[in-house]
Amino acid sequence: MRASYGHFCRIQTRWMDNDVYGHVNNVVFYSYFDTVINGFLIGQGGLDVHAGNVIGLCVESQCRYLAPAAFPEALDAGLRLAKVGRSSVRYEIGIFREGTDELCAFGYFVHVFVDRATRRPASLPDAMRAALTTLLRD
Amino acid sequence: MRASYGHFCRIQTRWMDNDVYGHVNNVVFYSYFDTVINGFLIGQGGLDVHAGNVIGLCVESQCRYLAPAAFPEALDAGLRLAKVGRSSVRYEIGIFREGTDELCAFGYFVHVFVDRATRRPASLPDAMRAALTTLLRD
Amino acid sequence: MRASYGHFCRIQTRWMDNDVYGHVNNVVFYSYFDTVINGFLIGQGGLDVHAGNVIGLCVESQCRYLAPAAFPEALDAGLRLAKVGRSSVRYEIGIFREGTDELCAFGYFVHVFVDRATRRPASLPDAMRAALTTLLRD
Amino acid sequence: MRASYGHFCRIQTRWMDNDVYGHVNNVVFYSYFDTVINGFLIGQGGLDVHAGNVIGLCVESQCRYLAPAAFPEALDAGLRLAKVGRSSVRYEIGIFREGTDELCAFGYFVHVFVDRATRRPASLPDAMRAALTTLLRD
Repeated sequence: MRASYGHFCRIQTRWMDNDVYGHVNNVVFYSYFDTVINGFLIGQGGLDVHAGNVIGLCVESQCRYLAPAAFPEALDAGLRLAKVGRSSVRYEIGIFREGTDELCAFGYFVHVFVDRATRRPASLPDAMRAALTTLLRD
Repeated sequence: MRASYGHFCRIQTRWMDNDVYGHVNNVVFYSYFDTVINGFLIGQGGLDVHAGNVIGLCVESQCRYLAPAAFPEALDAGLRLAKVGRSSVRYEIGIFREGTDELCAFGYFVHVFVDRATRRPASLPDAMRAALTTLLRD
Repeated sequence: MRASYGHFCRIQTRWMDNDVYGHVNNVVFYSYFDTVINGFLIGQGGLDVHAGNVIGLCVESQCRYLAPAAFPEALDAGLRLAKVGRSSVRYEIGIFREGTDELCAFGYFVHVFVDRATRRPASLPDAMRAALTTLLRD
Repeated sequence: MRASYGHFCRIQTRWMDNDVYGHVNNVVFYSYFDTVINGFLIGQGGLDVHAGNVIGLCVESQCRYLAPAAFPEALDAGLRLAKVGRSSVRYEIGIFREGTDELCAFGYFVHVFVDRATRRPASLPDAMRAALTTLLRD
């Protein structure tokens, strides 16, 4: 399962991630999604969040929860590409218990890339598209 | 659209809700979902998060984003019931701009109710089921 | 006590605000500070977070916790001015239980206003200074 | 400076940590404080957040901000002991840029340990006290 993801980010859970039931709150998993996606786009895809002309906006996301996680454990967020269009990208994300194949949660996230000023859909920059294709798995 | 939701919670956005692009981050909408759902369950449905035998765990959620929201505006989270089973509930949530029919985002959220100690599925308490049915709309 | 604050913001607590001990986590109170301060600056003081030349950066904050708060209750964040200099402002914030004089937490927060581009200290705009002086109490 | 801290936790910043000005929001630093403190107490000090008789509540915290941090960088949270009493502990925390002596922020945090049920002050468990003394530096 883990082998089907092309990029990983180690996530240190935080005290505040746990809710009153003692486990990482469902909402927080989406912040792990955001983190692995944007970390990849900034690090490998040339995304410049401060000054770039093209930025990615989330138009849809979903998560399914399989097993609880809890602070202080660390997790691994895996990222793979489901589909890339002219101005949109659909990612799939798996949240694994650190260093294992045990999946705590998985989901998808759809980015539409837009012009920063007009917020109209814009073509994915070539460097970003090239980086994203490295996430494709057979 | 707004009329199809049976319960509302006013959400004051917070400074931290906005991300670097100047709008409420996608993740934060899920915290509004959590808030309107659990607020209803505690206020109307008899949920006792500290000592009750039965608690609700999220097994799946989804959100679609239609229009940006931004601090310092206030929002209205609307809640309606999509489906109720023996031990699970599927809610639908709409996030409206304050006092209007303009939908910023909408999604669903599935709770499985479990025994607090064993975390095995448990029947919905009668009082909670009764409260939830008031959320049904034609 | 409440009468000594010149501006208030109603804060709806959120499910995620509660930590594993069942009360609003200490960290979250600082997000209430941020919210009442920036809400005032935007609403009354002319702060333009997207395009203004002068922005406020936090250089120091402190909070003391007197009584627990818990979702789903609402709180009132009160704001008053402790000191205003050429380019810095020290605010005092009190977090009250909704509609009461019962103080859950109080603290201070120091903003240094800087030029957005150079991040060098900048004089407070006149409109902001005028708004802030309305927060002074005897 | 770094050598004066006895315990460290690597903090991966998250997309949501950055606020509209493009840097880690002031509030979020306090979540790093919480994380390094409770991570130490759970890992080294025997704190059982789910079932232990004695829990730690924050009664006061403060942070001073020296230099901005920004997602996607990682940070190191350093922890040292300022003072330990019968039922209270004062920690000092430094947030360093990953692997360096550059301090982004520093502050303190005071825990009062209480009986979980009565919330009355309780003596620090011996194992926790012993663990905390390993954080003392000359």
